Amino acid sequence: MNTNRDTSASDCGRREFLKAGAVGVLGVGLGNLALAHSAVAAEPQPQSASPAIRPLKSVRIGLVGVGDMGSCHLQNLLRIDNVEVRAVCDIVEGKVAQAQDMIVKAGKRKPDAYTRGDTDFKRLCERDDIDLVYNATPWEWHVPVCLAAMNSGKHAATEVPAAVTLDECWQLVETAEKTGRHCVMMENCCYDQTELMILNMVRKGLLGELLRGEGGYLHDMRAIKFSRPGDGPWTAEGIWRLPHSVRRNGDLYPTHGLGPVAQCMNINRGNRLVRLTSMGSQSRGLKLFAAKKFGPESAQAKQHYVLSDVVVTLIQTHDGQVIVLNHDTSSPRPYSRNILVQGTKGIVVKYPEEKIHIEGRSGENEWEPLEKYRKEFEHPLWKSLAKRAEGLSQGGMECMDFIEDYRLIQCLLEGTPTDMDVYDAVTLSAVSALSERSIAANSTAVDFPDFTRGRWKNRQPLGIIS
Amino acid sequence: MNTNRDTSASDCGRREFLKAGAVGVLGVGLGNLALAHSAVAAEPQPQSASPAIRPLKSVRIGLVGVGDMGSCHLQNLLRIDNVEVRAVCDIVEGKVAQAQDMIVKAGKRKPDAYTRGDTDFKRLCERDDIDLVYNATPWEWHVPVCLAAMNSGKHAATEVPAAVTLDECWQLVETAEKTGRHCVMMENCCYDQTELMILNMVRKGLLGELLRGEGGYLHDMRAIKFSRPGDGPWTAEGIWRLPHSVRRNGDLYPTHGLGPVAQCMNINRGNRLVRLTSMGSQSRGLKLFAAKKFGPESAQAKQHYVLSDVVVTLIQTHDGQVIVLNHDTSSPRPYSRNILVQGTKGIVVKYPEEKIHIEGRSGENEWEPLEKYRKEFEHPLWKSLAKRAEGLSQGGMECMDFIEDYRLIQCLLEGTPTDMDVYDAVTLSAVSALSERSIAANSTAVDFPDFTRGRWKNRQPLGIIS
Repeated sequence: MNTNRDTSASDCGRREFLKAGAVGVLGVGLGNLALAHSAVAAEPQPQSASPAIRPLKSVRIGLVGVGDMGSCHLQNLLRIDNVEVRAVCDIVEGKVAQAQDMIVKAGKRKPDAYTRGDTDFKRLCERDDIDLVYNATPWEWHVPVCLAAMNSGKHAATEVPAAVTLDECWQLVETAEKTGRHCVMMENCCYDQTELMILNMVRKGLLGELLRGEGGYLHDMRAIKFSRPGDGPWTAEGIWRLPHSVRRNGDLYPTHGLGPVAQCMNINRGNRLVRLTSMGSQSRGLKLFAAKKFGPESAQAKQHYVLSDVVVTLIQTHDGQVIVLNHDTSSPRPYSRNILVQGTKGIVVKYPEEKIHIEGRSGENEWEPLEKYRKEFEHPLWKSLAKRAEGLSQGGMECMDFIEDYRLIQCLLEGTPTDMDVYDAVTLSAVSALSERSIAANSTAVDFPDFTRGRWKNRQPLGIIS
Repeated sequence: MNTNRDTSASDCGRREFLKAGAVGVLGVGLGNLALAHSAVAAEPQPQSASPAIRPLKSVRIGLVGVGDMGSCHLQNLLRIDNVEVRAVCDIVEGKVAQAQDMIVKAGKRKPDAYTRGDTDFKRLCERDDIDLVYNATPWEWHVPVCLAAMNSGKHAATEVPAAVTLDECWQLVETAEKTGRHCVMMENCCYDQTELMILNMVRKGLLGELLRGEGGYLHDMRAIKFSRPGDGPWTAEGIWRLPHSVRRNGDLYPTHGLGPVAQCMNINRGNRLVRLTSMGSQSRGLKLFAAKKFGPESAQAKQHYVLSDVVVTLIQTHDGQVIVLNHDTSSPRPYSRNILVQGTKGIVVKYPEEKIHIEGRSGENEWEPLEKYRKEFEHPLWKSLAKRAEGLSQGGMECMDFIEDYRLIQCLLEGTPTDMDVYDAVTLSAVSALSERSIAANSTAVDFPDFTRGRWKNRQPLGIIS
């Protein structure tokens, strides 16, 4: 596994440099660093990664990674028409067998198994009978799997974050552009009921011009980080999650909070993320927890964890908004994604309770329950799809995950652009690497690369899909 | 009036430079800039500004500024034993007459009036029968009045913020050190019920080691900023408040949120504020409001207001904590000071509802109402004094303001250090100037001056006063 951290300054301007080079004479002697990764980088005008892609009659899927999230998505996919899961890949044979069982029990054809180790996904990608590689592996495998998929002519859908380093971000962009395939980041929280409703409110102008957004991942993950396979459902993640807390200090998981806010603010679609600055607290929670769970002399308690217990990031948008992101995964606290959207006409928050204040509607200085606005502003996607998720069992995420998967399949069947494309995927994911860089430099402000290379100016905002 | 903004880089290191110079030979030819402000600057070892000051038998007060806050404090002072208000100063004669009436009605001697314009406070400060100059003037007059008071041998108490520029901050420190007088910033929110209780919880270890604090001033001030004298109570502030929104972009009012958090984190008392970074949103609210109130062609609607509608500031402490400050005064929203304190054992928030989660006490993933902890953790000051504020009428701030004034007088009568001294006053106030500097430089991180020049390491944390 590769959790290689690349926070060198050269990344940020790489595409800018390449563009400059490509317009004139390609700089002799400068090319090594810049061109090491991908031949496509030297193309003067790479095509957009949102091509008109022909509609599919059915979506034939290869599923890579069938742990907790992979199984969730599989449950959803089995409920959606015109989907066939042809192949399942995991390093744990038992998980593949379990997935095969689920599929057979749903009355579908048993998919082929790929269980020959870490890179067996490559064989899966090479099949000629799949359209989409659905990637629910640990973070550090997201990019290798997506690249293999696209380079084999398949669309890629990946769990969050899409990439860990800035270099990986560029690899996704360049490969999606070169191959003309989708690279979709499956950010389920964009499809949660309240987040969808807030997007609808924003589009209807209820909040006025947006000024501020907040979001985050505030989730006591201590037990999960120290879990080992067999500890129970949702807890085998420790084996790959904990190493990130050992080695990296930044907002490691920005997309749940940032995704919905970015959609409200039309990021990459008329607006863009310009710069960020991050600040981290002491690192205490993991060591304290380990000392209690494994004893003060245990290796886990003696380990140094560089991840700050609290990381706060400020992001400036091109239009001027401020976005505040929180990452808080090693302390005792109730779960929150801290969603807040504020505009010139009002403000709405999701945690710990859903509240809203709208000038002229709410009483002076009054928070109203958001519930009062539901009938008027419920998002049509939620209205039409929530019922279809009934009976799924995914720890409270049933509906949003189902809608997310439904939308992915719908777009592929209709040949329309996906709600989130490769530019969105890498822009949101890049916050991790940029925040690591900012914290390492005492909260220096760090610029976002423009992964769209100017296309953000003319891309259309995400509409209200019915 | 002087709202002179000094954000030049030379401020920050000024005292460091002076110290270096004073230890060896005073640098010839370098002295002009550094020594321009104050002769005391060249003293090799200025004494601490928290001297043991002799107890007073009674506190004889000269009150400068009797607008809304000045009248509040006067009400409080009239309820406290061993206080005599000897003189009252304001540029508005009617306000002085009103204050005199209040005092006489309370059965006290009629104080002398000082109403000969902007700088008549100087005559007041020169009287030889007052101990304390209590300063509730507009922001830009805080430092001139405090300096005049201390230079005349009087203690100074000032409304927040104590100073507007970094240069003013240093003037307060140097003058307090030179004269051996108190310079107290009256940050009433440090004495609010919940803030006091949180401090008590922190001191009792309930939250563990602190990791994060949040605070702010989130108050729809649009009507107040555009108010003119005669518009009603609390609204004459517009005349001096609005110009700050025209000219300055930063967190103009940091102390209500930061004060209580800084006390919890022992700032200047074993810990200190190290650096900050600030980010501001668009400026929209004031223009929109003015267009509606005065018409789109009005001077107010055509005015350019540089103050961002939302300013968010991250502050790093020496111990590693992250403090998040919000300033949000030009948008429709319910009032909040966003108080949050989080440690290794739990987290407590004040707005919009008071909630707490403590590991081992609260249920997993559960917010409890803070009320459940009141009996155990109510601060003794609140317990003993809240009843004495009954019947005061100060817009909901009765108790905290009364306790604040009570503590000031108590310290002067007992000859003990005040809860907040000149170092605290300028450290908290300096956030404004530093945040202006950070925003002007695209959220560059900016270091705090160490106003204590190393004394923060050995100063004792504020205890739990009964």
